Amino acid sequence: MSKNAIILLSGGLDSITVLALAKQQGFGCYALSFDYGQRHNAELNAASEIAKLYQVIDHKIINLGLGSIGGSALTDQNIQVPDKLEEGIPVTYVPARNTLFLAFALGWAEVLKITDIFIGVNAIDYSGYPDCRPEFINAFQHLANLATKAGAEGEHFTIHTPLISLSKAAIIKLGVELGVDYAPTVSCYSANSQGQACRVCDACRLRMIGFAEAGIPDPTRYQQ
Amino acid sequence: MSKNAIILLSGGLDSITVLALAKQQGFGCYALSFDYGQRHNAELNAASEIAKLYQVIDHKIINLGLGSIGGSALTDQNIQVPDKLEEGIPVTYVPARNTLFLAFALGWAEVLKITDIFIGVNAIDYSGYPDCRPEFINAFQHLANLATKAGAEGEHFTIHTPLISLSKAAIIKLGVELGVDYAPTVSCYSANSQGQACRVCDACRLRMIGFAEAGIPDPTRYQQ
Repeated sequence: MSKNAIILLSGGLDSITVLALAKQQGFGCYALSFDYGQRHNAELNAASEIAKLYQVIDHKIINLGLGSIGGSALTDQNIQVPDKLEEGIPVTYVPARNTLFLAFALGWAEVLKITDIFIGVNAIDYSGYPDCRPEFINAFQHLANLATKAGAEGEHFTIHTPLISLSKAAIIKLGVELGVDYAPTVSCYSANSQGQACRVCDACRLRMIGFAEAGIPDPTRYQQ
Repeated sequence: MSKNAIILLSGGLDSITVLALAKQQGFGCYALSFDYGQRHNAELNAASEIAKLYQVIDHKIINLGLGSIGGSALTDQNIQVPDKLEEGIPVTYVPARNTLFLAFALGWAEVLKITDIFIGVNAIDYSGYPDCRPEFINAFQHLANLATKAGAEGEHFTIHTPLISLSKAAIIKLGVELGVDYAPTVSCYSANSQGQACRVCDACRLRMIGFAEAGIPDPTRYQQ
């Protein structure tokens, strides 16, 4: 199989870092994004811009329609995005999101005869999300080899999670070393249509703390 | 949690049997179907009819858009549906299909606070599909408990596969005992818009052999 990889690209700070890292490691990159009814659609515009910037081989945006299932502040208009960090698993958790993202990546990987998939999950800052933990990733990798024709024929899938044990500050430092410009990325759960961030949601706070701790100027475009 | 379950309902012979069985076991049933660019869209009409017949609590049809990924005779117009049984994993295999189906079921289950999911996979007649094997189902069940907020909080998901070790004939006999009418179901990979079957694809052949072995009249509507 060729040394190509699929990169899950949300358009946020983590996924651009993962894409830059995969490129540096010599992978030909295919980018995969999802329109899952998230409120912060500005993310997808950022993903398209980043995919172009990094000259990926192909970029697909899959429409997931998770809005019809609901159950998360990110996809359900009846649940408010909170303006402070929560205890436990936050209401911004989207049921089975990473399972779905990885399942699509797996299907596309099999069609393209690729066995490497990169995902920017992070178990430190987002420890509230169960599907960002190493044990989840390991379970998915095990599943991938059983689920597929390629796996049944002896190929082995690898789910790469280079950021899983890094703090937000460490991710930003790594990205800056790799030459990443974080200006076009969008992390905010409530970004406006210009991709400007709200400053108050969980994602904004974690990002601001990350830049502050890394001692790197924050290029985020904030709402006035 | 309430005794409700999600039933993956394709509109074929297996899934109606599973639905009838879950109802008999006392589950309140939610039905989940997928429009994944399959050629045999008549299946979805059958699924809607069956969902109504069995008075499910809710029936959702999710648009998956697998056509943009391709790679299967069922979703890619450039790959021919074969007219005889193949050796090995058939070209009608859809990459990561059951992984995706179960991932959506898992997300919806979590929103509905349900921990029981029924899927009509069968390891005997469809042994060519890697994602119909018991080891795949076990791996998904393990994943489900790691992937979810419910799992992290101590709930346990069960993926029910009551047909997994039954022959097609045994499934039909079971269905008839449960009062299932197989006339509205569609199994054919190349059914026409009226849901009439082609007689020659893998799915038709396995179904015909099943009725013959069960000694039960075949109610399938065939093309003339």
